[in-house]
Amino acid sequence: MPTASIIGASGYTGGELLRLLLGHPEISLQQVTSRRYLGQYVYQVHPNLRKRTLLKFTDPAILEPVDILFLALPHGEAQKHIAEWASLAQYIVDLSADFRLRDPAAYEAWYGKPHAAPEWLEKFTYGLAELHRDDLRSAKYISGVGCNATATNLALLPLLQADLLDTARPVIAEIKVGSSEGGAEPNPGSHHPERSSVARTYAPYGHRHTAEVIQESGLRGVVLTMTSVDMVRGALATVHGWVKPGVATKDLWKAYRQAAKANPFLRLVKERRGVYRVPEPKILAGSNYADIGFDLDEKSGHVVSICAIDNLMKGAAGSAVQALNLALGLDETTGLDFPGLHPI
Amino acid sequence: MPTASIIGASGYTGGELLRLLLGHPEISLQQVTSRRYLGQYVYQVHPNLRKRTLLKFTDPAILEPVDILFLALPHGEAQKHIAEWASLAQYIVDLSADFRLRDPAAYEAWYGKPHAAPEWLEKFTYGLAELHRDDLRSAKYISGVGCNATATNLALLPLLQADLLDTARPVIAEIKVGSSEGGAEPNPGSHHPERSSVARTYAPYGHRHTAEVIQESGLRGVVLTMTSVDMVRGALATVHGWVKPGVATKDLWKAYRQAAKANPFLRLVKERRGVYRVPEPKILAGSNYADIGFDLDEKSGHVVSICAIDNLMKGAAGSAVQALNLALGLDETTGLDFPGLHPI
Amino acid sequence: MPTASIIGASGYTGGELLRLLLGHPEISLQQVTSRRYLGQYVYQVHPNLRKRTLLKFTDPAILEPVDILFLALPHGEAQKHIAEWASLAQYIVDLSADFRLRDPAAYEAWYGKPHAAPEWLEKFTYGLAELHRDDLRSAKYISGVGCNATATNLALLPLLQADLLDTARPVIAEIKVGSSEGGAEPNPGSHHPERSSVARTYAPYGHRHTAEVIQESGLRGVVLTMTSVDMVRGALATVHGWVKPGVATKDLWKAYRQAAKANPFLRLVKERRGVYRVPEPKILAGSNYADIGFDLDEKSGHVVSICAIDNLMKGAAGSAVQALNLALGLDETTGLDFPGLHPI
Amino acid sequence: MPTASIIGASGYTGGELLRLLLGHPEISLQQVTSRRYLGQYVYQVHPNLRKRTLLKFTDPAILEPVDILFLALPHGEAQKHIAEWASLAQYIVDLSADFRLRDPAAYEAWYGKPHAAPEWLEKFTYGLAELHRDDLRSAKYISGVGCNATATNLALLPLLQADLLDTARPVIAEIKVGSSEGGAEPNPGSHHPERSSVARTYAPYGHRHTAEVIQESGLRGVVLTMTSVDMVRGALATVHGWVKPGVATKDLWKAYRQAAKANPFLRLVKERRGVYRVPEPKILAGSNYADIGFDLDEKSGHVVSICAIDNLMKGAAGSAVQALNLALGLDETTGLDFPGLHPI
Repeated sequence: MPTASIIGASGYTGGELLRLLLGHPEISLQQVTSRRYLGQYVYQVHPNLRKRTLLKFTDPAILEPVDILFLALPHGEAQKHIAEWASLAQYIVDLSADFRLRDPAAYEAWYGKPHAAPEWLEKFTYGLAELHRDDLRSAKYISGVGCNATATNLALLPLLQADLLDTARPVIAEIKVGSSEGGAEPNPGSHHPERSSVARTYAPYGHRHTAEVIQESGLRGVVLTMTSVDMVRGALATVHGWVKPGVATKDLWKAYRQAAKANPFLRLVKERRGVYRVPEPKILAGSNYADIGFDLDEKSGHVVSICAIDNLMKGAAGSAVQALNLALGLDETTGLDFPGLHPI
Repeated sequence: MPTASIIGASGYTGGELLRLLLGHPEISLQQVTSRRYLGQYVYQVHPNLRKRTLLKFTDPAILEPVDILFLALPHGEAQKHIAEWASLAQYIVDLSADFRLRDPAAYEAWYGKPHAAPEWLEKFTYGLAELHRDDLRSAKYISGVGCNATATNLALLPLLQADLLDTARPVIAEIKVGSSEGGAEPNPGSHHPERSSVARTYAPYGHRHTAEVIQESGLRGVVLTMTSVDMVRGALATVHGWVKPGVATKDLWKAYRQAAKANPFLRLVKERRGVYRVPEPKILAGSNYADIGFDLDEKSGHVVSICAIDNLMKGAAGSAVQALNLALGLDETTGLDFPGLHPI
Repeated sequence: MPTASIIGASGYTGGELLRLLLGHPEISLQQVTSRRYLGQYVYQVHPNLRKRTLLKFTDPAILEPVDILFLALPHGEAQKHIAEWASLAQYIVDLSADFRLRDPAAYEAWYGKPHAAPEWLEKFTYGLAELHRDDLRSAKYISGVGCNATATNLALLPLLQADLLDTARPVIAEIKVGSSEGGAEPNPGSHHPERSSVARTYAPYGHRHTAEVIQESGLRGVVLTMTSVDMVRGALATVHGWVKPGVATKDLWKAYRQAAKANPFLRLVKERRGVYRVPEPKILAGSNYADIGFDLDEKSGHVVSICAIDNLMKGAAGSAVQALNLALGLDETTGLDFPGLHPI
Repeated sequence: MPTASIIGASGYTGGELLRLLLGHPEISLQQVTSRRYLGQYVYQVHPNLRKRTLLKFTDPAILEPVDILFLALPHGEAQKHIAEWASLAQYIVDLSADFRLRDPAAYEAWYGKPHAAPEWLEKFTYGLAELHRDDLRSAKYISGVGCNATATNLALLPLLQADLLDTARPVIAEIKVGSSEGGAEPNPGSHHPERSSVARTYAPYGHRHTAEVIQESGLRGVVLTMTSVDMVRGALATVHGWVKPGVATKDLWKAYRQAAKANPFLRLVKERRGVYRVPEPKILAGSNYADIGFDLDEKSGHVVSICAIDNLMKGAAGSAVQALNLALGLDETTGLDFPGLHPI
């Protein structure tokens, strides 16, 4: 069985990765590192794992060679050490933003400084199975995905694959996000009295995940507008665009059904009655599903495409494991079978 | 001192109106009616008013003449009885949707059936002081405002008054709303296990408040997209549009500052640092303020205008009292001085 | 592989049972019934199960014989039909309150009317593995457990098994509960604007689960005081009692460690530092763990024992499956391996 | 009109005090200090006050003499400078814990170090009007109150004033608190992903407010057990005790009614039907009311007394202003007329 270690496993993405790998039937977890929590049990930082593992955080400076190395570090760290880490493992899965963009100029434009290892960018495959399934089957270096980019890219997927979108017109992704997106470090904006019951459009433009949507969708004019709302996990993308002339609701039904059929983790949610008529992130907590839905104003051609995900799963650790499954020749759903909870 | 009664005072809007009128120094509250809670103390339905009033709900069939009659009934009721109620009071303030639209055809198109008293529509003044201050000074019949329409109209106000918006391009209002918008009656979608932590785009198109935005803004192509989030009070409109060629950020600063200066309840919120950089509804609970802000992408001309309100105050009872204050010749802020709480 | 059906699978407990049985490797799910949702897909009612099953709700009047029958009906229904249903299946697991109490007089005292099938009471084994593991190995008829009773009984377990508690003194269980305890039907108290941010001590005395604590603990003077708080899943019992003279903190450490060692789903949580120092229900959502902890004031002998559970899992469906696993001769953890999420 | 200044006005209690004093008709606010936010507008820290004041935070080292000095500093600061500050103002209202306890030994026992100005302790009057109304009328030095102590003391007030409680038996106050109790500084436990949906019994014993309950109630054996729940404002004390032999429910009705009658901010909440049957903190946000209720098990004599408050108002700034009103010879309700919101 292939062996894996996680560098930087104390954050929320690292914890989710830990949960998934401990339950993965085809991967053997070896080492998890954290400088800050060195020597502590992982369950002291990820309390859901108490009685599930006696692993302790080890020193990232003392890494044993393994088959797979997951990097779950703050943005900017992976690019500094990539050569060294690549010498320790056949497969690298980097969950940071360091290797998501293929174009060094785009990286510099969105992240504000030159990439430290630009020659590595083209070696990585963007780790969203729904867009790069075939490439991932032969990938050794896999980048993680931005959660907001993923919700947007998957909302766009049926429209783009069926060529229904008027790509010359604007696309506006209105994204509602939970507090876990901000990571495990407290800050004034995440303080409960300030963050509870919030509706805060904190970034009308310029969110860095926009770069991943531009790269993956080819849409130059796409805008991501970010609003924090009161939930812990979850991202909901409500994406506004315009369809090509003549496109009708039945065409969208066909495109979305096709997308859901072709991808094990995509589900079409569009009911006429009941409470669960549209995609909602809350029931996706812990699951790798992306629920998609749509509505079209046939008169104006304005289409609203919706995608809900768990930002830590389909938007991070889940997609990473799914992509690695493909690279390892496994069924892509391996170890990702938790269906989510209702109610929650 | 003018006397006032409230017909239909058991809902959330009615309760807010009660709170405001009990504290209003220039209005004397006489009667509040509710068929359902007939004979009960109002504090049994509005528990914040315990020890503030010993009023009981009376029968709406036995109404004494007063100077001002507030109607806080479900949509469709006021239009049935308007002639009768107008005979009892010099001033009518109707908080339902019955008299918001001037055009009977628009009413029928958006509400799905002909108006029962179309000849009354033109007698009413739309009760948003920021748009109709002068007309309200001589109004006898005042309509309430839709909360989502108000958040959108006030987000658009600076852009339209300064003529900065390219009105030929689409305008998309992405509105995040709290659970009190749905009223005091439980339903499957408002059940706490289903409504908690939600991000639910329940109406991509066709929300009835759209009609009020079209009427008040003159924008034919405006779309309201509604998303429920986990808060009780509050509506946040994030409005996307495009400015006219050449419009720059400094022009918007001027327009928004001017709007805030001209209107006592408009506040411009646009800070570079700190937690409170943008308008947020949470701190507005109980207050009549509308906080506005903006961001402009000068390259593309895409403007994001934001307005936050308390849906039960500026979006309903607060605007109604403000409008009536003008009609009575009072300072428009009379009885509306609660500043809101922080934290909350 | 044994076959199983669920009668009354549309509620929250029924849904959780469905999720568990669909993932159970040693049980084959056959039929799930619901009169109200007859003919609908189960995923329309339990949206987390979309793409996991194409089962539809069937008519409870047309039941096929199976090995195991789960009853997830409102209280009072199972006792009416128990003889009939027992003729259809070798194993009966009833999740309602109908067969939890062994004493018909106790049933009548707490539920307000005589039991309809008192002769069946003694045939049932109370389905809490931590208290009845051996009996369950040979049980055919298993009762579910009350969620609040379970949190209390497991908080008391280490103290009682080690005989540390002064049983002549009062025991007060202060229980904080989430909204899913009230079931899937909306009511005025569960309406989101009323239920959000609540701290409501709705039952100082007399909660029916008290009867189960009296029966299982033998403590006559135990009181359950119930407070609703703003969470969906979860029950936290903070149980106050007094230890016998001379009992010290180290005796409690020993007793709690022993309890956690002897029971796969009990975990002792008692850390000196960090955020996760005490049992909390939130990280248990979807898991079958019960986290326990304690604190002792050695001077006064006042002990506070804490137990956190997911009310729908360890407090309902999870305990039921665990108990059935024992009856079937399986490892009691089979199909109950979800560790819970963090953060959530 | 008397003048007042606030030292240390940037925290949550200071902000609430600011809101109250800006709206107080008989006090003229002069200066508010904050070292950290020196020179900033107060509305940048307390965003609800935007458009209400153009005050800026000034340097606490440069204080003008005033009639009243409010101290809203972290615990331990006021005692260091009390002599100096007392030379600047006739009235001192200290909202910290520094002058709440009359006994220096009690202070040292609960706060872990000797008091820096023990000779000042007896000069202060404990600022809870319901317990010290007459003394406050002639007080110059007023201490603030602990929020949890206040909820407990007011729950006990009717029982103690009517001499119904068996004071030889234990009294356990189970207190559920919101996140604003922890103050405005973020910490790992207040990080939204960790604090949301929480039920965390973080302090079974030893909360410092216990000392105030012992002092004010005379009960030596009282215990405060603290549980954090998901709300921002609010404290709910569910207090367990035992009544004297023979005390019946009608005696409690009389005692609680009497308490509510004698105190303008106490309200008895005990309804047989409806949603609002018991005291709940949520509707008290921003108001100075304390809602009280009770239940008695006549067989055992076990009484549950409940008190709900807004911790920042009746539990801090509201009680401080109420106490000062008495000292100034004003009606004690002056400037405290906000009734709270419903829904919220």
